[in-house]
Amino acid sequence: MARVSQAHLDARRRQILDGAALCFARNGFHATSMQDVLKEVDLSAGAVYRYFSGKDELIGAIVAEVLGTVREVYERAARETPPPTPDVLIPRTMAQLQQERPTLLADGTWMFPRLMLQVWAETVRNEELAAVLRDGFAVVRGSWRLLVEAYKEAGLMPADADADAMARVMIAFVQGFAAQLALFGPVPEETLRDGLRALMSVQRNDQESSPEQRS
Amino acid sequence: MARVSQAHLDARRRQILDGAALCFARNGFHATSMQDVLKEVDLSAGAVYRYFSGKDELIGAIVAEVLGTVREVYERAARETPPPTPDVLIPRTMAQLQQERPTLLADGTWMFPRLMLQVWAETVRNEELAAVLRDGFAVVRGSWRLLVEAYKEAGLMPADADADAMARVMIAFVQGFAAQLALFGPVPEETLRDGLRALMSVQRNDQESSPEQRS
Repeated sequence: MARVSQAHLDARRRQILDGAALCFARNGFHATSMQDVLKEVDLSAGAVYRYFSGKDELIGAIVAEVLGTVREVYERAARETPPPTPDVLIPRTMAQLQQERPTLLADGTWMFPRLMLQVWAETVRNEELAAVLRDGFAVVRGSWRLLVEAYKEAGLMPADADADAMARVMIAFVQGFAAQLALFGPVPEETLRDGLRALMSVQRNDQESSPEQRS
Repeated sequence: MARVSQAHLDARRRQILDGAALCFARNGFHATSMQDVLKEVDLSAGAVYRYFSGKDELIGAIVAEVLGTVREVYERAARETPPPTPDVLIPRTMAQLQQERPTLLADGTWMFPRLMLQVWAETVRNEELAAVLRDGFAVVRGSWRLLVEAYKEAGLMPADADADAMARVMIAFVQGFAAQLALFGPVPEETLRDGLRALMSVQRNDQESSPEQRS
């Protein structure tokens, strides 16, 4: 076997992951065969199986990579002074995800949100994938908690706000927005920003039922 | 054929829809056959096909019904004085959805969030279902805009906040939260409430880049 450089190995791995991601995004995990992936990346079975043992390993690698990117974005944001508030950070995160995976374009459509939907649908039936996603969720939740603590230190929110609950809310928002992108098409960044600003501007009218006062 | 009451017809229709919803939630739309549905509801093919021509009609009816319930919840909230803010309304909506569909329990797990994931995964490949979802999204977005206007009238948020962008954000949040329920299991109502309160408490730190001042 000819010796090949690490750069070549990395590029080929990238090519396989992106091709598989496109196949899964288009047709779903179940309806995609390894034959479809081989055809998409235009490589021999031998070349592909050298990197991945099958569909499960491919989807696991794709999910782990995406979660790593998301985690980096939030951890970088937590180190900024002052940290960018959600109305700024969330649109930026969506834009960065799109920039970092330009290969996930099919006929001009960014297929990443569709990939997420297919991953979720598969996760509820696939215990290995569920474990990958649970671990990733815990990690991203941890990054968001750091960010909430950074908001508190910058005096941008009350010290007694629930950081983990807010982490879940922010992750839910990104997940839901990905669903909207996949189901209803592109949305301007300004919509994300202005929608979050509007929500952040709402005053509570239910002071009497706040947890401090009820207990 | 014996004459049957409307109540009987309605109950049978309900039974078929719930059984089909359970099948789709468990195994996905693609992997579920009409045979699976017949087995789940324990009815003959003749009895079921009298109500629904097949899987497409079943999933369309399920989705339309859920969207109708969601719409009602928001429109009712918009008529309250003062209207319940998102930190109160969203947990209430989740609880109501669960109450109204008790039949969607399997081994104690509320299967509705899983059903949503399967519907989304199918929607990106099924133009008819996509049309149902697009219409439903427009309707729910309209209900949320009414609610935002009610917040404004109650003096709970600035008059110039973007009502449609906030509608999208709130829907994204519910969608994402449904994804979390399906993927990671139950979440206490307080987590939803406290997470939304935390987000609503964040002060923006980027006044210089607000739309009014940039233009």
